[in-house]
Amino acid sequence: MIIVTRKSITDAELDHIRERVEQAGLRTHVARGEQRTIIGCIGDEALLSEVALLSLPGVESVTPVLKPYKLASREFAASSTVVRVGDSPDTHIGGDSLTVIAGPCSVEGLDMLRETARSVRDSGARLLRGGAFKPRTSPYAFQGFGAAALEMLAQARQDTGMPVVTEVMDPRQVESVVAYADVLQIGARNMQNFSLLSEVGKVQRPVLLKRGLSARVSELLMAAEYIMDQGNRDVILCERGIRTYETATRNTLDVAAIPVLKAETHLPVIVDPSHAGGRADLVAPLAFAAIAAGADGLIVEVHPSPEQALSDGDQSLTLAAFRDMMRLLRLFATAAGRRMPDETVAASVAAA
Amino acid sequence: MIIVTRKSITDAELDHIRERVEQAGLRTHVARGEQRTIIGCIGDEALLSEVALLSLPGVESVTPVLKPYKLASREFAASSTVVRVGDSPDTHIGGDSLTVIAGPCSVEGLDMLRETARSVRDSGARLLRGGAFKPRTSPYAFQGFGAAALEMLAQARQDTGMPVVTEVMDPRQVESVVAYADVLQIGARNMQNFSLLSEVGKVQRPVLLKRGLSARVSELLMAAEYIMDQGNRDVILCERGIRTYETATRNTLDVAAIPVLKAETHLPVIVDPSHAGGRADLVAPLAFAAIAAGADGLIVEVHPSPEQALSDGDQSLTLAAFRDMMRLLRLFATAAGRRMPDETVAASVAAA
Amino acid sequence: MIIVTRKSITDAELDHIRERVEQAGLRTHVARGEQRTIIGCIGDEALLSEVALLSLPGVESVTPVLKPYKLASREFAASSTVVRVGDSPDTHIGGDSLTVIAGPCSVEGLDMLRETARSVRDSGARLLRGGAFKPRTSPYAFQGFGAAALEMLAQARQDTGMPVVTEVMDPRQVESVVAYADVLQIGARNMQNFSLLSEVGKVQRPVLLKRGLSARVSELLMAAEYIMDQGNRDVILCERGIRTYETATRNTLDVAAIPVLKAETHLPVIVDPSHAGGRADLVAPLAFAAIAAGADGLIVEVHPSPEQALSDGDQSLTLAAFRDMMRLLRLFATAAGRRMPDETVAASVAAA
Amino acid sequence: MIIVTRKSITDAELDHIRERVEQAGLRTHVARGEQRTIIGCIGDEALLSEVALLSLPGVESVTPVLKPYKLASREFAASSTVVRVGDSPDTHIGGDSLTVIAGPCSVEGLDMLRETARSVRDSGARLLRGGAFKPRTSPYAFQGFGAAALEMLAQARQDTGMPVVTEVMDPRQVESVVAYADVLQIGARNMQNFSLLSEVGKVQRPVLLKRGLSARVSELLMAAEYIMDQGNRDVILCERGIRTYETATRNTLDVAAIPVLKAETHLPVIVDPSHAGGRADLVAPLAFAAIAAGADGLIVEVHPSPEQALSDGDQSLTLAAFRDMMRLLRLFATAAGRRMPDETVAASVAAA
Repeated sequence: MIIVTRKSITDAELDHIRERVEQAGLRTHVARGEQRTIIGCIGDEALLSEVALLSLPGVESVTPVLKPYKLASREFAASSTVVRVGDSPDTHIGGDSLTVIAGPCSVEGLDMLRETARSVRDSGARLLRGGAFKPRTSPYAFQGFGAAALEMLAQARQDTGMPVVTEVMDPRQVESVVAYADVLQIGARNMQNFSLLSEVGKVQRPVLLKRGLSARVSELLMAAEYIMDQGNRDVILCERGIRTYETATRNTLDVAAIPVLKAETHLPVIVDPSHAGGRADLVAPLAFAAIAAGADGLIVEVHPSPEQALSDGDQSLTLAAFRDMMRLLRLFATAAGRRMPDETVAASVAAA
Repeated sequence: MIIVTRKSITDAELDHIRERVEQAGLRTHVARGEQRTIIGCIGDEALLSEVALLSLPGVESVTPVLKPYKLASREFAASSTVVRVGDSPDTHIGGDSLTVIAGPCSVEGLDMLRETARSVRDSGARLLRGGAFKPRTSPYAFQGFGAAALEMLAQARQDTGMPVVTEVMDPRQVESVVAYADVLQIGARNMQNFSLLSEVGKVQRPVLLKRGLSARVSELLMAAEYIMDQGNRDVILCERGIRTYETATRNTLDVAAIPVLKAETHLPVIVDPSHAGGRADLVAPLAFAAIAAGADGLIVEVHPSPEQALSDGDQSLTLAAFRDMMRLLRLFATAAGRRMPDETVAASVAAA
Repeated sequence: MIIVTRKSITDAELDHIRERVEQAGLRTHVARGEQRTIIGCIGDEALLSEVALLSLPGVESVTPVLKPYKLASREFAASSTVVRVGDSPDTHIGGDSLTVIAGPCSVEGLDMLRETARSVRDSGARLLRGGAFKPRTSPYAFQGFGAAALEMLAQARQDTGMPVVTEVMDPRQVESVVAYADVLQIGARNMQNFSLLSEVGKVQRPVLLKRGLSARVSELLMAAEYIMDQGNRDVILCERGIRTYETATRNTLDVAAIPVLKAETHLPVIVDPSHAGGRADLVAPLAFAAIAAGADGLIVEVHPSPEQALSDGDQSLTLAAFRDMMRLLRLFATAAGRRMPDETVAASVAAA
Repeated sequence: MIIVTRKSITDAELDHIRERVEQAGLRTHVARGEQRTIIGCIGDEALLSEVALLSLPGVESVTPVLKPYKLASREFAASSTVVRVGDSPDTHIGGDSLTVIAGPCSVEGLDMLRETARSVRDSGARLLRGGAFKPRTSPYAFQGFGAAALEMLAQARQDTGMPVVTEVMDPRQVESVVAYADVLQIGARNMQNFSLLSEVGKVQRPVLLKRGLSARVSELLMAAEYIMDQGNRDVILCERGIRTYETATRNTLDVAAIPVLKAETHLPVIVDPSHAGGRADLVAPLAFAAIAAGADGLIVEVHPSPEQALSDGDQSLTLAAFRDMMRLLRLFATAAGRRMPDETVAASVAAA
């Protein structure tokens, strides 16, 4: 922590500041300039988190030196984390693979789910997504089929061999969702729902954590830290667009967050191009950009008939559009030095 | 709902759009221009919420005509809502009164809470705030004293006669917090925690709903709608600053949201100048601005010794600074045509 | 300047950083922590502005200690600046007065200008605004009547005795605008048009400098510094709303910028409630909020018939609405301890 | 234009609205719903730009149907514009090529400029960038070497055969800059400097127009329209990051703006990854992302010794880092179906 003092600071005020810092267990180091005095605080900054330094007389500004996240920081782990998913030994997110998760926004029925699952699997997706509990801005909008949808996801998994990803919105749902899902998704609106983060931190199941609508990269990492601090280290970070003044797109994909996160953390980073743009025609270019910038994977909304979708139809790809995107995606994955896990399936698709 | 079509639309596409809208139960009205055709959809727009109109071939844009909120809209209620709080017949928020809520960010002990409560009451505050469960960005920061703090709030209420406001963060806490609190606070980070909103909607206790960090005014009203739709109509809206690019303040107080909300809804609107600016020296000017813009009240962080505070010390007022602010606040309240409820107490304070 | 180094820094890298700083003429002060080393740079930070410190190996972050503005900083002046305007000894902006500037967005004709000028003067405005050169987003929109409008402003001044404020958009216009205007306005879109800032800095005429759409407070002060550095010290700062994600208003009035600016600079600060909200019904509440937060004045768009206005009609007040607002404004001015310059005129208006 | 009326509208108000629209030369089409009445305005919307519709009694909202830009719109041109640059028949921006512009932020001397030019040319860049006039936030920072720098650019062009790009900041500079530069750059801070836009619109020289810090895509296109409306149709649009709340990067690269612009306009679109991230380590991933999303080219800051740079050293690539980036860039260009103009040079570089 670095404290910069006001020009007018008195010696007594300076002593008082040093005393408060030293009481918290850190050492101080004073550098007097012509206009300002700088106090360097050496030691564990977390000990200062409960000291209201800015309220001390004579303090002008306080700047942290160390990152507030520990378990999520790159320095914490020897190498990048690869999160294993489901029972299959070769389904994972991270490393030199590129993993694509695809499926409908909401699970709307078993037939549509099966049809989608088979199709996206044949196009190269490795995990199936599908919402059972849907967070909707309006209380009058479709809220998902709940427990019945979890059952359908389990059946689609049995059919296709694909592990499933679904959102959990409430700490009371965690137990039942864990009984069905291979990956627990935390939605953007719940990124700082700390009760929910703690609860999914207590189970041993990978968590896909979406960045909040106006969360800083450092806050996303602190949200991951909440989960990891409870014992669950399998966190997958997901950039899904942030809220800005621009109205041409639903959100603004912060593509730079990918390399920034890769530098800051050992956790895998994926991207949701469907929510980022909010328009089906933007999904492919944003997906390609994400891979080029270094993402470990994608989560994409696909629907057999987007215009019939009960939610997010405007941004869903058709089965054919997803297949076309995946063919081009392989070119970018190769350029990025990434392996897509199921090259055999892909090859047979490409040959078809 | 107004649908604007692409220049290149075919007759078949136009018919298909009309058919989808009419299937949902609305009438259509087509106006053909030289470059674009406009389809007006007459009827209940909520019926269209599950139709992915943008994904229909030929559609360029879709604009809603009606507001998505009903119970929260000004048109719904004959007059502005006045929320009664606690047992006293004359403690309320809304109407022509100006109600000030004050107290420490966190309840840190019974003595400090009592001292603060008495002092802010004598300065003109009518409700006591104090956090028992604290949402903190870091899992390593102080998280509040929980149930013990609820007990202390109850004791401070008994001592001072002030109803208490405290935050609830988890649907599982609602029952226990209701047993102690006169007003349930939903924090900014939980404004779209829909499970929590539904849960506080099921109890008959006023809810103080804070605007999310990057929530639009319309989304704040939709969050209120979630609560009201469950049966609880006593919602108090709170503007507390939004996230922008400006770094001079912690958040940016959106003072225009006050008159915008007053035009859109019958619910009372208060302001939190402490979180908005994040700096003790900004609390008074922001409080005065809020009243001048038409707010029904304030919620202010006050601490006997801000530099010792376990959270948010940088933005807490001392007891003396709060008293000074309240004296000036009366002048602005009068200019705004507002009555502060306890003029007698105030007068005796002013005479002191 | 404070430099924080990476954990992995070598001694040679550390020496190289110190050498670069010391070459620039500052002293260094090294504090070694367990995880990071901090280098305090003591001396004139401006000397470091051309050193790419972040590109030096081993540097993690660089934080300035001193403010980059000098002439505009509060420390520079013994007291708050009061800007005298026009020939009258008692027309000024700043100090304990509250000065209101009013008039049409564009000068559309001599009759409408005279009618507006007389009416706003009688309601308590002291300066007349009116656009001759209009910056418009579209090249196809009305661009102002140019030189002819400047003539009309001069005539309205002669008629009413009110000094006039008008915008200058191009360095080549400065000379001709100075021949007519008492205050030169720099619009939000030109806040960082450095050629224009330098040009208006070379004349001795007050400058009303509007904050850019996404300018930080510190950047507004640096823009003022450009003008002042050329010799013109009469700069009036104007908060006019910033661009955010919120769509309910045209811009978001950053009301906290008023007390922040008052703490940082000795220059007067006024507010434009017309552009901030973009809606006539928001002008009065935003004006009241601005005064309550400590603004030295307002600039307000008024039009005899807003629906006939050639620009910005949506946000213009009618003559009657302006008069009503001014009556209430006096109450807030009194609460804020501000004197409105023409109390006699106001009294006669109030008696009417 | 679509006008939605308030619930409480009277017949007289409705008639008045229609009258105003029809006076402007459009037809109206009224659709009455249960709660709102919709008025469709058929005809040239530009005619309504000077009617303050929102100020008419009974109007709730006004939504444009047509895009405000004409010359810049995709519909205006039969095919995508390819901008030819300099004398060489095969140097151009747009089409199926990928064109890279590179060079120092500022021209700091002839030797460094020549060294940089040769090196970036050999790495595959086709145009040389270099600032002669520098817009700087501080009046005390280095402002560029002006006319002397223009001379050096001309010499570097003669040496290397590379056309040069340099910024023009002031309408009075246009003539002299045109005498030296092959492409005129308009910086982000001048995107809405309408005098400057008009001035560069009057010369026949390609213009590289950077997006403003908080400009919407539609405003960038309107700025292009200003230039094109004066007769100069050779406009190259440049996405360079927008201002958001995120502090991890200098700006937020809006990568989705690339496909959005490609859908809206026939003009070529390039990206500036140096300013977008503000950090040298982010330049390559952002460059790759831009190409993957469909950009027609890049403009990149390169310096022989970034730590000695007089401006923007923190984000400049070294000559070697640029060469490495260009090697990888070819892989992404191929994946994106783009040809890099100088494959021979590239091949020889790759073989080296």
